[in-house]
Amino acid sequence: MSRGDRRDRAADMTGLAAALRAFVGADAVLDKAEDIAGYRGDLACPTGGDILCVVRPRTTQETAVVVKACAAAGVSLAPRGGGTGLAGGATPEPGRSSVVISFERMRQIRSIDPIGNVMVVEAGCTLHAAQQAAADAGRFLGLDHGAASSQIGGNLSTNAGGNNVLRYGMARDQVLGLEVVLADGRVISRLMPLRKNNAGYDLKQVFLGSEGTLGLITAAALHLRPAAVVSATACIGAASLEAVLEFFVLARRTLGEAISAFEIMPREGLEFHFAHIGKRREPFEARTPWIVLVEADSASAYFNLAEAFEALLATAIENGMVVDGTIAATQAQRQALWSLREGIAVAMVEAPGSLKSDTAVPVAAIAEFVAQARVSVDDVVPGCIPVPFGHVGDGNIHFNVLPPVGMSSADFSAKWSDLARAIEDVALSLGGTISAEHGIGLVKRVALKRALSSTELDVMRTLKLVFDPGNILNPGKIL
Amino acid sequence: MSRGDRRDRAADMTGLAAALRAFVGADAVLDKAEDIAGYRGDLACPTGGDILCVVRPRTTQETAVVVKACAAAGVSLAPRGGGTGLAGGATPEPGRSSVVISFERMRQIRSIDPIGNVMVVEAGCTLHAAQQAAADAGRFLGLDHGAASSQIGGNLSTNAGGNNVLRYGMARDQVLGLEVVLADGRVISRLMPLRKNNAGYDLKQVFLGSEGTLGLITAAALHLRPAAVVSATACIGAASLEAVLEFFVLARRTLGEAISAFEIMPREGLEFHFAHIGKRREPFEARTPWIVLVEADSASAYFNLAEAFEALLATAIENGMVVDGTIAATQAQRQALWSLREGIAVAMVEAPGSLKSDTAVPVAAIAEFVAQARVSVDDVVPGCIPVPFGHVGDGNIHFNVLPPVGMSSADFSAKWSDLARAIEDVALSLGGTISAEHGIGLVKRVALKRALSSTELDVMRTLKLVFDPGNILNPGKIL
Repeated sequence: MSRGDRRDRAADMTGLAAALRAFVGADAVLDKAEDIAGYRGDLACPTGGDILCVVRPRTTQETAVVVKACAAAGVSLAPRGGGTGLAGGATPEPGRSSVVISFERMRQIRSIDPIGNVMVVEAGCTLHAAQQAAADAGRFLGLDHGAASSQIGGNLSTNAGGNNVLRYGMARDQVLGLEVVLADGRVISRLMPLRKNNAGYDLKQVFLGSEGTLGLITAAALHLRPAAVVSATACIGAASLEAVLEFFVLARRTLGEAISAFEIMPREGLEFHFAHIGKRREPFEARTPWIVLVEADSASAYFNLAEAFEALLATAIENGMVVDGTIAATQAQRQALWSLREGIAVAMVEAPGSLKSDTAVPVAAIAEFVAQARVSVDDVVPGCIPVPFGHVGDGNIHFNVLPPVGMSSADFSAKWSDLARAIEDVALSLGGTISAEHGIGLVKRVALKRALSSTELDVMRTLKLVFDPGNILNPGKIL
Repeated sequence: MSRGDRRDRAADMTGLAAALRAFVGADAVLDKAEDIAGYRGDLACPTGGDILCVVRPRTTQETAVVVKACAAAGVSLAPRGGGTGLAGGATPEPGRSSVVISFERMRQIRSIDPIGNVMVVEAGCTLHAAQQAAADAGRFLGLDHGAASSQIGGNLSTNAGGNNVLRYGMARDQVLGLEVVLADGRVISRLMPLRKNNAGYDLKQVFLGSEGTLGLITAAALHLRPAAVVSATACIGAASLEAVLEFFVLARRTLGEAISAFEIMPREGLEFHFAHIGKRREPFEARTPWIVLVEADSASAYFNLAEAFEALLATAIENGMVVDGTIAATQAQRQALWSLREGIAVAMVEAPGSLKSDTAVPVAAIAEFVAQARVSVDDVVPGCIPVPFGHVGDGNIHFNVLPPVGMSSADFSAKWSDLARAIEDVALSLGGTISAEHGIGLVKRVALKRALSSTELDVMRTLKLVFDPGNILNPGKIL
């Protein structure tokens, strides 16, 4: 780029910010360093490329105007939800100047229909607010994960997963209708509240999970379920992963469709959490290598979950699958058990140096995956401490890794990409995936190319080219 | 086309059939009139354009070869499953010569994983065979509708619905992975058995429900559920649709997630069925205007469905929602109740002249929809007899219509398109859809253009152009 070009470009940029102010109001556009500091990235990639300004539309129509203005100026847009992503999907592409578009002002719950079990929410509504609104209407949103401050738009554009996928599926599976702004500013508003709708190609599927690279989701019609009226939570200890899987099969047989979460924690994870908070919080006496959290609920009072859980634990102990266990008797006890699970994730985020991972394998291959990945990571960094934890019920084990005792964060993080690749290769060799629920964003683009066929990559590139020929929607992500 | 062109074309066609025989074996290609008679169309459009030959590949690789050969010859392909469709999706486009590709020889169940609850089946496997294989493994496929002889490939490419959508969603919602042959003969084989997989764009979603116009589905990984261990079925009579909807809300509250079907039949439908089979089969004494079939099941023995159903009926009768009712005590009684429901559909197909319809509206708008549609169709054909029946739980009421007493089939069917439009317009005005579960095929292309925005149609046309630039995959369907 010549100096003249650069000057013209700079003038354009100033013009763009002014134009955006004119279109959506001065207070909707931020460009002071202190104002835009909080928009630089997500939990995985805290900073990326330059931010020209942050624009915060209030409506779908304003969003369309912003997209049109950026398209006309040839400036790329980095869409942003709650910023809780773990793949750099909300981080402006390094080496490029972007306008960040934040949906924080579009947080209306437009409607709730308790007969049809549908809620229409805007992209900037937080997951927590959406869950709460559903609960207030006596309904339940089948999406839950560690980040309650994430926004619905981010959840849908990354196809978020979490703890209840076993029962309710992914974020995509909650969506009946979608409102989307295309790369040329046209709007598709198809907020159908219908479970059945075969009127042509199901366009919403293109945008769900595409991380804002094919269109910007501004609102969604979400399918709700009846709220639970009975629930039960247990925590058990097991001697091996094989025993955990046997227990999973037994739990599913006993609890049927009511099983909503089945999470594992390794002893190393609990010890790491206890060290991080400075106290021991053992759920029961035996200090077993594996700890499992199992939860079930039902929207019918005729489901006798208390009896089911007692029978489940009795049988599991009798058959030797389970060494020790406890059933939560109160909501406080339930929360204490869940805080063990969430405590590991929090410690991993807050303590420097640990490698986060997000592979999935077929459920039947989990024990094999963990065994092989242990060997693989030890080959890369001898003495490192694997903390495989997470969602047994859907095969999504977060094979996180702590540095060996005495190794610095800097030395360990220099090995992250080798470790990640070692773990991903084991997952792929067992028929698994390199990204279960976090998406690709900036951080898994290289891994994605190893995981897919050239035909798949080619079709994905074609989709990107067709939906965003100017490459202005979240460029540099996924592909 | 000049006479010379036509002669060249005819030579090409003969060459193509010979080439296909060379590629996939002589017995895989049919072109005698008596052999291809059964491949001319589906239940809605029994005949369409000329069939050059019927090719029946045995493998995905053979399918790819067939597609390449047809693409090279510029000859279009009409993909075909069980031929039970109700929109002409499997009918070769009128005015064009096509090769029919039938998946009847690709009917393997490649694998069943009872730990991961996944089954990999080929496109030509019938729905019935897939259901049976799941049952044999102690599992359950959450897809069921009137046509057990339909094939999985057809079910997925039309995103079939049916009686259990209320609980399990559409055909799309059962799919974890897909194998697809693209229009240029390349194959995407991504039969992932994972509930969570965010490795790039979810390409399978493009092909599901696209009626064979964007790619040919050759196999799928389907999500299974635990088999039910308890179930219950009841049939009740109600005085009004409003009472039926109140009963639906009560049933969902009582049965929670276990409710798997909630079907209505109008008195006119039962009478039509009884006349068709030549005997009365009243489910209970009171001859109410509306009859409801409600079913629930659970994979847990701890769900007391018997008690739940008794409480449900007692409350409903006490509150005046329900006039009379019966709970099936045996499997034979259950089947007798379901045969009332299926008997209406069968009579509609077998008796000439009746108009079939497939709209859906929000559940809360069902009573309003039926009331308005009654008025609308009577405006078009005074004295015609509406038979609105079907799936209350998902809003998909088949507003079928019988001719007035004394009107000939020919006179009545001349009014079909006016009647269909009248019904569709009411559905659209209430936020519904012109096609709930049957798809668009040949018969709803005009209606689709009324139902969608120009932007949506434009994006759909772009998808078609990108995935099938030569327009050889099921041309003339949907768009």
